[in-house]
Amino acid sequence: MTTGHVFIAQSLDGYIARPDGAIDWLMSIDTAGEDHGYHDFISTIDCIVMGRGTFEMALSFELWPYDKPVIVVSSTLSSADIADHLRDKVRVSHAAPRDLMMELSRDGFHRAYVDGGKVIQSFLRDGLIQDMVITTIPVLLGAGRPLFGDVHRDIHMKHISSRSFPSGLVQSTYNVDVTVS
Amino acid sequence: MTTGHVFIAQSLDGYIARPDGAIDWLMSIDTAGEDHGYHDFISTIDCIVMGRGTFEMALSFELWPYDKPVIVVSSTLSSADIADHLRDKVRVSHAAPRDLMMELSRDGFHRAYVDGGKVIQSFLRDGLIQDMVITTIPVLLGAGRPLFGDVHRDIHMKHISSRSFPSGLVQSTYNVDVTVS
Repeated sequence: MTTGHVFIAQSLDGYIARPDGAIDWLMSIDTAGEDHGYHDFISTIDCIVMGRGTFEMALSFELWPYDKPVIVVSSTLSSADIADHLRDKVRVSHAAPRDLMMELSRDGFHRAYVDGGKVIQSFLRDGLIQDMVITTIPVLLGAGRPLFGDVHRDIHMKHISSRSFPSGLVQSTYNVDVTVS
Repeated sequence: MTTGHVFIAQSLDGYIARPDGAIDWLMSIDTAGEDHGYHDFISTIDCIVMGRGTFEMALSFELWPYDKPVIVVSSTLSSADIADHLRDKVRVSHAAPRDLMMELSRDGFHRAYVDGGKVIQSFLRDGLIQDMVITTIPVLLGAGRPLFGDVHRDIHMKHISSRSFPSGLVQSTYNVDVTVS
């Protein structure tokens, strides 16, 4: 089955966006000259699974930011909501996480980038995330959209590596230990 | 004024205890042979400020775990609640964070270890925490008592250093950037 992979930034208090979705606190960090590994990561990925919030964030950029097929997981959107110029890049899925991963596997996709808080949470709960690269920004927001949510039982991770950057970002890579979770 | 210093462990999803206060997930990690720096940290500290939850956790240990003066910040406890054998080690304070720090300063205490989620949160909001050593345990609990809470405005941190351990613990040290918060 297709495996899920997370590459995401969070505030030190665990938010990936403010309550209204804003990521100004993330964009305002001066990381000039730093390579946080996104391009290396994305080069290993066959497709991108995201929620509606992440999709709408991507739409707000001047240029469509992805060069891999995007699957938007949403119960409210339909393919009619996808603009014509994105029809060959983006499709909407109403499938449950495991069904979607089986479908993506049949389509020949091996590794899916799973992005967005709620989507990551549901894929984690269903044991569909293989590893997570979490970059922590040194700021407390106090409120927002959390990276993590409810889990049915403890989910154990195996720490692979950590590194920090002059900007103050700390990046840790974990494998999700599906054998004990 | 007395400065506040935090040395605390959290789950990867930002909890310092389960909803009922349990820290089994923390105690069950095999960290044999690892020095996470607690003794070096505590040797720099003059007194310990904690909330009722942390105090009750400390009471549950077979031996009283602190050899520095402890101040329990609580609106519900009084000095009558302190057992006789702890009377010379523990006192209760109803003071607001800033007032308490001024009082501790008059008592000759320079550096206070500030412990417990709610107490840390209130001291952070009032700009009374100088630095934080946060050790992240590689497990998702899904629910519990959070390390961080509401803040009036973004609180910026300066990342000092990070290190990881064979057990999977990742420890980061931050200075609280009070100039911009």
